[in-house]
Amino acid sequence: MDELTLYIANKNYSSWSFRPWIAMTAAGIPFREELIPFGPGATHPRFRDLSPTGRVPVLHHGAVRIWESLAIIEYIAELFPDAGLWPADRESRSLARSISMEMLSGFRALRSACPMNMRRPVNGIALPEGVIADVTRIEEIWRDMRQRSGGPFLFGAFSGADAMFAPVINRFATYDLVRDAETIAYMDAMRAHPAWRVWEEAALAESWIVPEDEA
Amino acid sequence: MDELTLYIANKNYSSWSFRPWIAMTAAGIPFREELIPFGPGATHPRFRDLSPTGRVPVLHHGAVRIWESLAIIEYIAELFPDAGLWPADRESRSLARSISMEMLSGFRALRSACPMNMRRPVNGIALPEGVIADVTRIEEIWRDMRQRSGGPFLFGAFSGADAMFAPVINRFATYDLVRDAETIAYMDAMRAHPAWRVWEEAALAESWIVPEDEA
Repeated sequence: MDELTLYIANKNYSSWSFRPWIAMTAAGIPFREELIPFGPGATHPRFRDLSPTGRVPVLHHGAVRIWESLAIIEYIAELFPDAGLWPADRESRSLARSISMEMLSGFRALRSACPMNMRRPVNGIALPEGVIADVTRIEEIWRDMRQRSGGPFLFGAFSGADAMFAPVINRFATYDLVRDAETIAYMDAMRAHPAWRVWEEAALAESWIVPEDEA
Repeated sequence: MDELTLYIANKNYSSWSFRPWIAMTAAGIPFREELIPFGPGATHPRFRDLSPTGRVPVLHHGAVRIWESLAIIEYIAELFPDAGLWPADRESRSLARSISMEMLSGFRALRSACPMNMRRPVNGIALPEGVIADVTRIEEIWRDMRQRSGGPFLFGAFSGADAMFAPVINRFATYDLVRDAETIAYMDAMRAHPAWRVWEEAALAESWIVPEDEA
């Protein structure tokens, strides 16, 4: 099989890159990683050569290009059907996709006010309208799914749905947004995952600063 | 098999409802449709009883609830693998998912400035920043996919990806946003599809007005 190359940006800031990276790493998928740090405007001229969207992440597989974090996860789930990217039963899988797409398409208030920033000290900020509603709904999703599956992850074992929410766990922690014990138990499980720790360690070692993402 | 019930809102305005509805109708999937017109604020108290997001569309299948337009399409594609919701070859399918998720997560400037409105007379508006870039990228997607497949739809025959872009075709037309002959050829193919015509006819017959969506 052709080599898989995942192009990503800064591990400290690139929430979209984090999702397929942690999904593939947690599932033990062999891939080559190419990190291109953001230039001015939180973008880079090379991104346009790598992806039709001009953004990362993008997965190269031979001549095939797959973009959008969740489309990459779907592609890997098809290539490696036994890797557990999605839950095995159809109902759980449909829930995993529903919540992953809710994350992909929504929660704009939270994402815009509270950029992912792995290095940032824990510190609250003044929250614009809509952030609390986003936090509340995400906590509800996590609680519902973990009650249904028994945890520790959303569908028992780590899946693509956990990967889609991974950046939010950093946002909740660093902007000091949550108090609920069940929420924090899930965040602790995520931050204890070996794949999380590898990404975090690399993020903490980066020295690049993206001013737009320093809230 | 349990009956499939798709809950939707106004056919004139609800772009999110239009996507799974046209995907399922074009693919010949048997389902029951329940339309609940938007109340004040372009929402409805019943939506919360029907879906954990408080929004439509939502698909009910026995006790299972599937929300988010594209998650519904994925679920139907799994239930009816021969219905052609996704292209049969893996590379095309990965492209179909990449562009569908680009649509699900992006093009906010276009979607916010130019709400879907099937009844609206063709008439340009002053375009906020970002709309032209959204239009240009969508035209590029359509051109690339139709050149690759030979058309008339994005992947030859009608697929879930066409369904995801269906509301944009109305936006491009009613706000008079495009001139390119290839773009218009695709729009014409979509608007000539029998499923499009059934939805459009019902939309034109609706009398409810949603002030927020009258741009």
